[in-house]
Amino acid sequence: MTPSSSVFDRFYSVIPAGGVGSRLWPLSRADAPKFLHDLTGSGQTLLRDTWDRLVPLSSPQRVMVVTGRAHRAAVEDQLPDLTDENVVLESEPRDSTAAIGLAAAILERREPGVIMGSFAADHVIRDRVRFHQAVREAILAADAGYITTIGIQPTEPAIGFGYIHYKEGNAGIEGAPSARLVDSFVEKPDLATAERYLAGGDYLWNAGMFITRADLLLEEIGRSKPALLEGLTELAEAWDDPARRGPAVDRIWPRLERIAIDYSVAEPAAAAGRLAVVPGYFDWDDVGDFASLAKLNSSGRKSDLAILGANARVLSDASSGIVVTQTGRVISLIGVKDIVVVDTPDALLVTTSENAQRVKSVVDALKLTGSTDVL
Amino acid sequence: MTPSSSVFDRFYSVIPAGGVGSRLWPLSRADAPKFLHDLTGSGQTLLRDTWDRLVPLSSPQRVMVVTGRAHRAAVEDQLPDLTDENVVLESEPRDSTAAIGLAAAILERREPGVIMGSFAADHVIRDRVRFHQAVREAILAADAGYITTIGIQPTEPAIGFGYIHYKEGNAGIEGAPSARLVDSFVEKPDLATAERYLAGGDYLWNAGMFITRADLLLEEIGRSKPALLEGLTELAEAWDDPARRGPAVDRIWPRLERIAIDYSVAEPAAAAGRLAVVPGYFDWDDVGDFASLAKLNSSGRKSDLAILGANARVLSDASSGIVVTQTGRVISLIGVKDIVVVDTPDALLVTTSENAQRVKSVVDALKLTGSTDVL
Repeated sequence: MTPSSSVFDRFYSVIPAGGVGSRLWPLSRADAPKFLHDLTGSGQTLLRDTWDRLVPLSSPQRVMVVTGRAHRAAVEDQLPDLTDENVVLESEPRDSTAAIGLAAAILERREPGVIMGSFAADHVIRDRVRFHQAVREAILAADAGYITTIGIQPTEPAIGFGYIHYKEGNAGIEGAPSARLVDSFVEKPDLATAERYLAGGDYLWNAGMFITRADLLLEEIGRSKPALLEGLTELAEAWDDPARRGPAVDRIWPRLERIAIDYSVAEPAAAAGRLAVVPGYFDWDDVGDFASLAKLNSSGRKSDLAILGANARVLSDASSGIVVTQTGRVISLIGVKDIVVVDTPDALLVTTSENAQRVKSVVDALKLTGSTDVL
Repeated sequence: MTPSSSVFDRFYSVIPAGGVGSRLWPLSRADAPKFLHDLTGSGQTLLRDTWDRLVPLSSPQRVMVVTGRAHRAAVEDQLPDLTDENVVLESEPRDSTAAIGLAAAILERREPGVIMGSFAADHVIRDRVRFHQAVREAILAADAGYITTIGIQPTEPAIGFGYIHYKEGNAGIEGAPSARLVDSFVEKPDLATAERYLAGGDYLWNAGMFITRADLLLEEIGRSKPALLEGLTELAEAWDDPARRGPAVDRIWPRLERIAIDYSVAEPAAAAGRLAVVPGYFDWDDVGDFASLAKLNSSGRKSDLAILGANARVLSDASSGIVVTQTGRVISLIGVKDIVVVDTPDALLVTTSENAQRVKSVVDALKLTGSTDVL
């Protein structure tokens, strides 16, 4: 066994499957979140696509899913090879530090020295070969002691993503020639700033992928959020004891601080020189809104109307935008440009690509008006 | 009894209830045509509104409805006071000359010298007082021997209606001081022409209302279309004999020429100086498309989104256009202007006010593609 192959054997995939995807309402719902939809026309859900992308890196026995209790059945239905011990259920959402940190704490107890990679359940990546190349390099960087992220090489000045700014020169990590040290994580920029990032060449899209030794991730959480680490450690100690897990979850989980892992781990680790990034040269899309979904489903051609839905009956003179239908109704579009029509049994959305980011405000308004039946 | 009251006693209302209203698809369908819808929020169908508008002019026993066989039950349901002998069923649509001419031939046989007024089943008129004033004047003009129409005083340079051009000076008809002789009927104009018509002051909108002695209407049909008159006369002779009606309809009706009464009667009568017009100073709308429907239901304010449908749940930042819903679904509109959304159980239309006239093309396309289930 070569040293590198043994490193790869220590790798464990973690899929945090949370988040409703409010910007994809009314397609995405509390009881049918984004990761349970086929958004690419692949014939299977994003969650299943994610699983299929990860099992060549870590066997089916080494993929853990962290999800809400309400989604347990749907997740297990999608992933029949997921083992019971790899299903981590949240009693309520506590953001990404708690979700990923709990996975880290459980895995580290079970298997000290484990290297974990955390990958969102609802992102789209088609080029598996290059994805695997990047992850393998990130695993080696993680083994060398870095919290490692994979940053996506930008193809346009996108304003919907956060960016990773890396330092000049490679990080000198053995086996990870393209890894760089991260200078900083930056929030979603305006267009002018995004254009500057793209021109500069030293910015990557933050795709929320973290590959790291579990113990080092926990250490990092402990530095910025010691109470959170304490809770996660207590939880992990009780986790594999059927008698203790339930009470521990009930007692500890609801009091864990809600904080995104970008803030608790990535930013402080970057500032301290402990965060590396491997550039990813594969396609990547977080399908953040219907404009992204339209682009994703129009074969990259902006001039095509994308149509998503089995048995769609669409009659349209529209040359751009998207129709998503779950109803089988005849849908006719006349003289509308860049239109977004989402047709579900109990809710209909009509907007434009330009307004796609504002869909979240509808969800907020529906909450305020008590129309929770369609959320 | 004054002479004028006896004239009014001879009046008979005829309601041709035909036409699908393709420009109002998918609201209006072959099995649920425009006249069977409540398009004004009045709580009752346009047909029933029409009936209610006419019964003060001619008693419920003197209103005849000409409609398709398929609509018999719906019509009788809407108009419980309609008598059996006043239901004239078409085995198939043969356009307005056949429909109105058959009514004329039947009524003239039953009651020689009858004065009939024909009014579409699917137009909207709210000001009944002025409507009745205009019809009464038209009845007197009809009694004086004129085929008489009521032309609507234009309020804007509409391009969706035909126009009636009248001659200078009043027609000198006793009891009908505002009646003019008609110079010509003109087709839907372009905007520049419509503006010229409006500025000229001697053009009225053609609302398709004809008030005339039945015998003179038949005479006029006979002049331009003798074969058509022959067929109608034969049909009328057999009509009130239960044994003869059916066979006569089967034999004669399908072979009658399809021609609009504007061409067979109005234009030649105008050219010959036999057509009079009474200006109508009431509101009138033929609800020709969803742009009209939007205007009709936004209290005249162009800046309001009109919403039509019981239990509509609409969440919208749109300040213009219309939502018509039959489903009770939540409908959310974001950042769309002048939008038209028509939400029915099996078909959805999304277009704009500007494109409202093009809705008919969808119906044509659906026919061509065999999607007759939603027509």
